[in-house]
Amino acid sequence: MKSIYIINPLTDKEFEQMTIREAEAATSAGTQLLVVSIDKGPASIECRYDEVLAELYVVQKVREVADKADAIIINCFGDVGVDAAREVTDVPIIGPGTSTMALAQLLGHNFSAVVPTSGGNLIIKRIAAKLGTTKLASVRAVTPDIPVLELLNEAKLVEKMTKASLKAIEEDGAHVIVLGCTGMAGLADQVKHELADQGYSIPVLDPLIVALKLAEILVDMKISQSRLTYPPPPEKERTGYD
Amino acid sequence: MKSIYIINPLTDKEFEQMTIREAEAATSAGTQLLVVSIDKGPASIECRYDEVLAELYVVQKVREVADKADAIIINCFGDVGVDAAREVTDVPIIGPGTSTMALAQLLGHNFSAVVPTSGGNLIIKRIAAKLGTTKLASVRAVTPDIPVLELLNEAKLVEKMTKASLKAIEEDGAHVIVLGCTGMAGLADQVKHELADQGYSIPVLDPLIVALKLAEILVDMKISQSRLTYPPPPEKERTGYD
Amino acid sequence: MKSIYIINPLTDKEFEQMTIREAEAATSAGTQLLVVSIDKGPASIECRYDEVLAELYVVQKVREVADKADAIIINCFGDVGVDAAREVTDVPIIGPGTSTMALAQLLGHNFSAVVPTSGGNLIIKRIAAKLGTTKLASVRAVTPDIPVLELLNEAKLVEKMTKASLKAIEEDGAHVIVLGCTGMAGLADQVKHELADQGYSIPVLDPLIVALKLAEILVDMKISQSRLTYPPPPEKERTGYD
Amino acid sequence: MKSIYIINPLTDKEFEQMTIREAEAATSAGTQLLVVSIDKGPASIECRYDEVLAELYVVQKVREVADKADAIIINCFGDVGVDAAREVTDVPIIGPGTSTMALAQLLGHNFSAVVPTSGGNLIIKRIAAKLGTTKLASVRAVTPDIPVLELLNEAKLVEKMTKASLKAIEEDGAHVIVLGCTGMAGLADQVKHELADQGYSIPVLDPLIVALKLAEILVDMKISQSRLTYPPPPEKERTGYD
Amino acid sequence: MKSIYIINPLTDKEFEQMTIREAEAATSAGTQLLVVSIDKGPASIECRYDEVLAELYVVQKVREVADKADAIIINCFGDVGVDAAREVTDVPIIGPGTSTMALAQLLGHNFSAVVPTSGGNLIIKRIAAKLGTTKLASVRAVTPDIPVLELLNEAKLVEKMTKASLKAIEEDGAHVIVLGCTGMAGLADQVKHELADQGYSIPVLDPLIVALKLAEILVDMKISQSRLTYPPPPEKERTGYD
Amino acid sequence: MKSIYIINPLTDKEFEQMTIREAEAATSAGTQLLVVSIDKGPASIECRYDEVLAELYVVQKVREVADKADAIIINCFGDVGVDAAREVTDVPIIGPGTSTMALAQLLGHNFSAVVPTSGGNLIIKRIAAKLGTTKLASVRAVTPDIPVLELLNEAKLVEKMTKASLKAIEEDGAHVIVLGCTGMAGLADQVKHELADQGYSIPVLDPLIVALKLAEILVDMKISQSRLTYPPPPEKERTGYD
Repeated sequence: MKSIYIINPLTDKEFEQMTIREAEAATSAGTQLLVVSIDKGPASIECRYDEVLAELYVVQKVREVADKADAIIINCFGDVGVDAAREVTDVPIIGPGTSTMALAQLLGHNFSAVVPTSGGNLIIKRIAAKLGTTKLASVRAVTPDIPVLELLNEAKLVEKMTKASLKAIEEDGAHVIVLGCTGMAGLADQVKHELADQGYSIPVLDPLIVALKLAEILVDMKISQSRLTYPPPPEKERTGYD
Repeated sequence: MKSIYIINPLTDKEFEQMTIREAEAATSAGTQLLVVSIDKGPASIECRYDEVLAELYVVQKVREVADKADAIIINCFGDVGVDAAREVTDVPIIGPGTSTMALAQLLGHNFSAVVPTSGGNLIIKRIAAKLGTTKLASVRAVTPDIPVLELLNEAKLVEKMTKASLKAIEEDGAHVIVLGCTGMAGLADQVKHELADQGYSIPVLDPLIVALKLAEILVDMKISQSRLTYPPPPEKERTGYD
Repeated sequence: MKSIYIINPLTDKEFEQMTIREAEAATSAGTQLLVVSIDKGPASIECRYDEVLAELYVVQKVREVADKADAIIINCFGDVGVDAAREVTDVPIIGPGTSTMALAQLLGHNFSAVVPTSGGNLIIKRIAAKLGTTKLASVRAVTPDIPVLELLNEAKLVEKMTKASLKAIEEDGAHVIVLGCTGMAGLADQVKHELADQGYSIPVLDPLIVALKLAEILVDMKISQSRLTYPPPPEKERTGYD
Repeated sequence: MKSIYIINPLTDKEFEQMTIREAEAATSAGTQLLVVSIDKGPASIECRYDEVLAELYVVQKVREVADKADAIIINCFGDVGVDAAREVTDVPIIGPGTSTMALAQLLGHNFSAVVPTSGGNLIIKRIAAKLGTTKLASVRAVTPDIPVLELLNEAKLVEKMTKASLKAIEEDGAHVIVLGCTGMAGLADQVKHELADQGYSIPVLDPLIVALKLAEILVDMKISQSRLTYPPPPEKERTGYD
Repeated sequence: MKSIYIINPLTDKEFEQMTIREAEAATSAGTQLLVVSIDKGPASIECRYDEVLAELYVVQKVREVADKADAIIINCFGDVGVDAAREVTDVPIIGPGTSTMALAQLLGHNFSAVVPTSGGNLIIKRIAAKLGTTKLASVRAVTPDIPVLELLNEAKLVEKMTKASLKAIEEDGAHVIVLGCTGMAGLADQVKHELADQGYSIPVLDPLIVALKLAEILVDMKISQSRLTYPPPPEKERTGYD
Repeated sequence: MKSIYIINPLTDKEFEQMTIREAEAATSAGTQLLVVSIDKGPASIECRYDEVLAELYVVQKVREVADKADAIIINCFGDVGVDAAREVTDVPIIGPGTSTMALAQLLGHNFSAVVPTSGGNLIIKRIAAKLGTTKLASVRAVTPDIPVLELLNEAKLVEKMTKASLKAIEEDGAHVIVLGCTGMAGLADQVKHELADQGYSIPVLDPLIVALKLAEILVDMKISQSRLTYPPPPEKERTGYD
């Protein structure tokens, strides 16, 4: 039995419920899933300032659960706190954004990301650069912008995501679609079917689910991140945190 | 229960036995594993000519097993026949080389590949370019060259692979090691421990195992390759094959 | 007197007649031209599956004619079997696609390719990546798609190619046009004049003719491909072919 | 009279004294210089974990001084908190690392960075990628590694930095040297003279000084960062901070 | 007191007057500014032929003023004669185009250049490649084309530049605007205000002013170009010039 | 009968004799070859200053011979004056450096250039960037440096070039060798045989000969440079030249 933790780097409880619901549906028999949120921080992640606020609590939460975890997912497309967390533990730390792009590379000539707001463009490009992929064709935002937390109650969200996906396919030449926000969880299959109805039989990837399945096989293979890239922090005085 | 086929794009029977042994050890409970070789073709894959000879039989074998398979792995680092196979079926077709590089990207700043012969250099670079990764630090061959089929009975192979890995780490700055040939299956853990003994706690990835675990989760997620990149071949006269 | 073979990697006889007609018109006095097709295989090359089917017969045909040839052109934009063929002979093997892009680089800031079907997009990009050029501005398909073999009898083909070229120039900023299929042979000059009539005095390159002239000067210079990139295949058991 | 703040993203007081001393020597007549440190956080910045700890206090300090500042420098090569800080104010926020690389690009064919520890390699590459420069030739660490705070009292530091610079020049082909840590402040001229004595008349850039001079001219030109890249954070609930 | 020379690589006197007016407005108290034009050559720089004609006189003028100058700006976006000039003197030689792009990189995710004629596209791309930046989003020409010297008396020039900037922002995703011709001097602030009125608070950079301010701080820091990139020309016979 | 002019962008008469001798040996039956030097300028091209001095006279010579020429080669690896020359005529203008690299791309995985002085490194990289090739593996200078004009009378030059080529092959992984200076004309075959004796059967390309053969086939194919990249210079006042 493996224990996989999903840490939401935000404090919203409705988001936590949604995450539990969607992740449990995809969990394998041998996996015990635990979804937690950070104790304090921003309600959602929409800018660099939110990331800065969240990252400290992400690292603290990682430290809190590391002993009990076989793998930990930081549930945001933007790898919030992933690098620092990898320094403080040997447990595999997984970011949904990089994971999903890594998989997307394998499935077609290129991929595009669909995001909830036009501001998501920079996050996606930063994550693609971090991963080191050259296959990102474009980023398409649903229109008009939808704040992350409103995604959960958004009417006609699938329709809007499908429309953005079609623009990615028809105008940008995308061959695979990546949902570029973990707040869009649970909708990949519906978007995929809508696209298939329009004649496009292509993968639509849900970052939460990809991260979860990847976490499971990393545990199976006993593989974790490189200690050459993420060495343990050197001892020194650090004040103001505990 | 999911059925995963591993097609060896070569005819050597000892290689097939080794593949069965290593893959079975990593197979999940819910997976039925079937390892087959192509009926005719080269004994091993070491050049473009070998690939041309093997590819036709790979596609034929894919057609033969597709109805019974939930996913198919073409068991060579060089994606032999993968693209053509993806055109003739909706079943996910997986190449170990691209799969392993995609995973390696996620685990550290960069990665190097260790290969059995200096000629492997071009195959690795071609696969990295196909995947679209910018994180390949270097390719290191064991010295002296070891023909693929002799890997199976090679004395001190782990020692030689460790030596090549150390060169990748210390001279090329590699942070993750990828075994760049499916004939090296089953040795990743030993190399990993040797490197750890030298002070380098880093992932060493076995392409056969990575491909197998990836195949399992693609089936779980019901994801296959994009039909925009791999459309079905148009109807036309094709002679000389059946 | 130099002997240059053109091997069509397809079986269509009308295509062979067209190839003879167009190539002969461009052949120098000192060149003996011989156009042959593969004995079996696909009628035309339009997907990776077609390529796999054709490549084996290409290599066989290369072996058959190598003793009599000073240079050999594999007459398809997609370098079908070129790499494997280069391994089995010292005779220069020339691919029209890479050759034409190499020349296009020299003539202007960038170039675009005009192709018969939207599926040609991936072939062009693969060939550009193989060559290692950064100057491909775009790929433009004639609309609607025209299957390769129907090009030979297509009404208003020059008009359609000109239209696609104009889109490349005016929307993608192309400065040189490459015809991205050897089935478009013989039309470059007409497209060039049409473009000049619209005010664009730019080169329009025919891949068959470029390959032929390049073959002639390679023979003159006694230059062939590098044996470091294309070493002779190692001896081993290979079954199912003869 | 313009007010330029230098915020040290660390708590060490000796480092603050050194910063004041070196920066004041380079300050123009019309500039009022103010050097402050964050109130809490790590003693120095040497890993991603340190950065996460420091960034929150950097943003708080930026907010605290923004009303009184014409420009603010975050005094670490790694752009610690720069992006988040740019979101919360219209005052120009300047990172020494990106600034110095931008200048280095202008002065020669390429540049190398000299850093205090081998771990600095990843920070430099991340900053180069963020800037978008293709001119980073290499990163060279002094040997053996020197922790950042020990730089201040290190014997023969100039000699060690010169040695690393010579390796960058002679083995990596570097044409310009960038000091890759703001803890190396005040030594650029000495290294430059040592290199000139060895026959290499090239620029050696001090990141603190470059950032300071750049800050002065940004104020002169009334130029700040783009609000399209750094929009103000949207209103939302954020807990645990004040 | 530092002496900064601006050399206009063209002979037009009205252009010289404009340059004096705009540069003086931005000159610091401690700077003595001297604006000169080449003695012979093209009236303006609009093609490679103009550059060839101008470069010789640029180098001659550099030699003429080098003894009296602390820094020299060659006042054209296209680095006309900059490299050769750097070989013949130790005085810092500054090109406005590379300087402005280096600064633009620091201020946002990417930048676009606005140019007077569509032919400016190639100059901008050449300069971006020379600098080694990957952040050039696009080049936008005012429409219809305006010859460089007519810029000085062009009605509604700000309006046309704003229009081109808006296209760069809205269609190409630009976050910073660079004026891509030193003939557009003095208009950056007006364009910036127009863009702000449209809701885009972003930097608009004037290359002459950026070059001037950069020259001042290079002198302050006693930094010049690398002698490894720009070694003194070897002694040899050179005829036809004096 | 086609007339091909070779313009040496330097004034040395011994160099002219050597050029005539080597080029004539490679000229086809249908070609009339004419080798001329510029009337004034540098004795040889070794730096940017030399290039600036030569370019004006190159353009003048091009204008002088254009009416009589079917193609013109500017006989220096560094494309001295090529772009400006292409603006002033419709006759194909050919640079040996870009031409040879374009051909080298076609013959193997990558190529290295062998140059007479370490200063040649920057010229080669500039030409590779201009061509847009990603296949330049390295630049290797003969040691010690040999000034261009001394190449003509250099003892053991083939031995020194072979030694540099071997370093390119064995240390940099080069698969094709390009002679990176037209002063090395006539030695490619000897170097090639030396390398073959060492077990490396690879192409060694002579830039003068490649340019000549390329010029011949451009004339055959009636292809010239793009007028979109090289439009005719606009009319304007240009003084100091005639």
